[in-house]
Amino acid sequence: MQTVTEITVEGKVLSRVVSGPDAAGVAGILDGYRKVWMVYDANVTAHAAGIEEALSRSGRLAASVPLAASEEAKTIETVLAMEDWLLATGADRDALLLAVGGGITTDMAGFAASVYKRGIRFAFVPTTLLAQVDAAIGGKTGVNFRSLKNMLGVIRQPDFTYICPAVLETLPARDFRSGAAEMLKTFIIEDGGNYEKAVRLLADIASGASIASRTEELQQLIGAAAAVKAGVVSRDQFENGERRKLNLGHTFAHAIEWKARAAGSDITHGEAVAIGIILAARLTDKALADRLREDFSRAGLPTDLPFPLDSLAEAMLKDKKAEGGKVHFVLIRSIGDVYTEDLTVAEAIARL
Amino acid sequence: MQTVTEITVEGKVLSRVVSGPDAAGVAGILDGYRKVWMVYDANVTAHAAGIEEALSRSGRLAASVPLAASEEAKTIETVLAMEDWLLATGADRDALLLAVGGGITTDMAGFAASVYKRGIRFAFVPTTLLAQVDAAIGGKTGVNFRSLKNMLGVIRQPDFTYICPAVLETLPARDFRSGAAEMLKTFIIEDGGNYEKAVRLLADIASGASIASRTEELQQLIGAAAAVKAGVVSRDQFENGERRKLNLGHTFAHAIEWKARAAGSDITHGEAVAIGIILAARLTDKALADRLREDFSRAGLPTDLPFPLDSLAEAMLKDKKAEGGKVHFVLIRSIGDVYTEDLTVAEAIARL
Repeated sequence: MQTVTEITVEGKVLSRVVSGPDAAGVAGILDGYRKVWMVYDANVTAHAAGIEEALSRSGRLAASVPLAASEEAKTIETVLAMEDWLLATGADRDALLLAVGGGITTDMAGFAASVYKRGIRFAFVPTTLLAQVDAAIGGKTGVNFRSLKNMLGVIRQPDFTYICPAVLETLPARDFRSGAAEMLKTFIIEDGGNYEKAVRLLADIASGASIASRTEELQQLIGAAAAVKAGVVSRDQFENGERRKLNLGHTFAHAIEWKARAAGSDITHGEAVAIGIILAARLTDKALADRLREDFSRAGLPTDLPFPLDSLAEAMLKDKKAEGGKVHFVLIRSIGDVYTEDLTVAEAIARL
Repeated sequence: MQTVTEITVEGKVLSRVVSGPDAAGVAGILDGYRKVWMVYDANVTAHAAGIEEALSRSGRLAASVPLAASEEAKTIETVLAMEDWLLATGADRDALLLAVGGGITTDMAGFAASVYKRGIRFAFVPTTLLAQVDAAIGGKTGVNFRSLKNMLGVIRQPDFTYICPAVLETLPARDFRSGAAEMLKTFIIEDGGNYEKAVRLLADIASGASIASRTEELQQLIGAAAAVKAGVVSRDQFENGERRKLNLGHTFAHAIEWKARAAGSDITHGEAVAIGIILAARLTDKALADRLREDFSRAGLPTDLPFPLDSLAEAMLKDKKAEGGKVHFVLIRSIGDVYTEDLTVAEAIARL
């Protein structure tokens, strides 16, 4: 087990990203916790079973429950069901809630823990690439509300996020690509030589290379992405400035997801982010947008809006990041150099 | 307008307690805020109207809504109705939610603001003595859940709490006494010569002296109580240690309230706290308990359990502060000197 990076605010370590060989390995770093409550995505029962067994052996497992994680079930009602379960199984204020699953599971569990008895500790074992590089790092928790994404939630750091690339071997290819988009986003924000490496690796995997054969490179890139995110969050935990950069592509993406879902299409978050990044690039540099389009295509990601441009505007206006009529857009100067600019939705659409 | 005290954690001022002559005066300290959303207890419409008018004059009022505040309506559903209202009226991430009312109103509004778009700013104008000396200071927010008090919530500080004793002139006598209990609790925790002063003033008011005639003394004592609380919270915001002292009498009180409500009686929180403090005193010093009983009686507070002692145990076991079978009890060495001890409920009951 190894510390990959930390979220440090004013000299205080708020959260750690640690890595280990397999999911069950997380049981080895729970020495400081008396009792563990585990919630896991029903899709990763095999990984959860390994953790459960290891926790039982060390006498730390208080209770464990599967969750049907979906964007539709990412609601306050599901969070309240978790509160009921915590209450029914006697979770005290010193309980640790361990969430095993993708971003939906970690977002909801983090929120549930943050409001249970005014806040108990929580930690994550992300089982998707998206959660490993993005969702499970940085403390954004929450649920959708009135069809608006992550409208209710808090920013509160998990004690730790435990990363093991091995769990990705069983991840459906489409979910893997969804995470690929967030990884590429991260390196467009802060490159460090990783963007090109990531495109090459993701292109190889998209053309058939197995994840098991590329674990080492993957681990390095996941760790690098986690470190970029942890650094940004350390400098601006509550998103008053720099953290907004992490929303690159997301103002478009949230609207794309919303419209696509309303039309009955099942676009993934990462797919929407990929398209959103291309749109964001077009706001400043059409040639750069074309280059990204090529890279993303090689990585197996979609790059074109699945509906007409103008139908996006309404959905974008509802986005939670709108402040004072203007929207914070993240724009790209070049790979590794992004900045934010406040534009009205009309101004942005006109530039595309 | 005057700063009474501050909550300062690691050199950073998280919250201010300020005072002014009347409720509307709060509009004068909102220079840093672009738009204000106001939620107010329907029982204090007169005070709210004054604030509303002042906010409208300065062009800061975005929306305002009354709330039927009661222990029964202190639920997640009421909080979600606030979220709907914030959403419908276009509250952005830079909105300020101003809550005008007693502890139920400030607890719910603080919670609603803390989870809306992962946290917007909020501030309080407490209109009850209880909220001025206790509930509206320290950042504990939340709602009841499954009949358990404040089971869901967060600890997050309001930007400021604005205190004006003038609003107490219209407060029903019974509600005033409810706050009196928390004020006495505060000075039992940290005296500074205020406990005796408070007993005398509260006894005078209980025997008919008008609040208007004693505003100055009241202001001094409210400020002193707020400063005690702010000091404790500054040293232990998340209640891992010293802050537990503020629960003096409350482990009993929560159980008393729960049992009383189940029996259809309408005991106030302060009344339950008064009885709870007497019980807590009996755990260590029967003579001290008798003295407090006399003081509390003079201040118009009840001192005797309204039902048999043994029926308390079950309710106490459900209390959210139970950890590992033991309950943190706050015990009294003498006025101004309290400490915590972990006891099982059975051990505590046996000592009474």
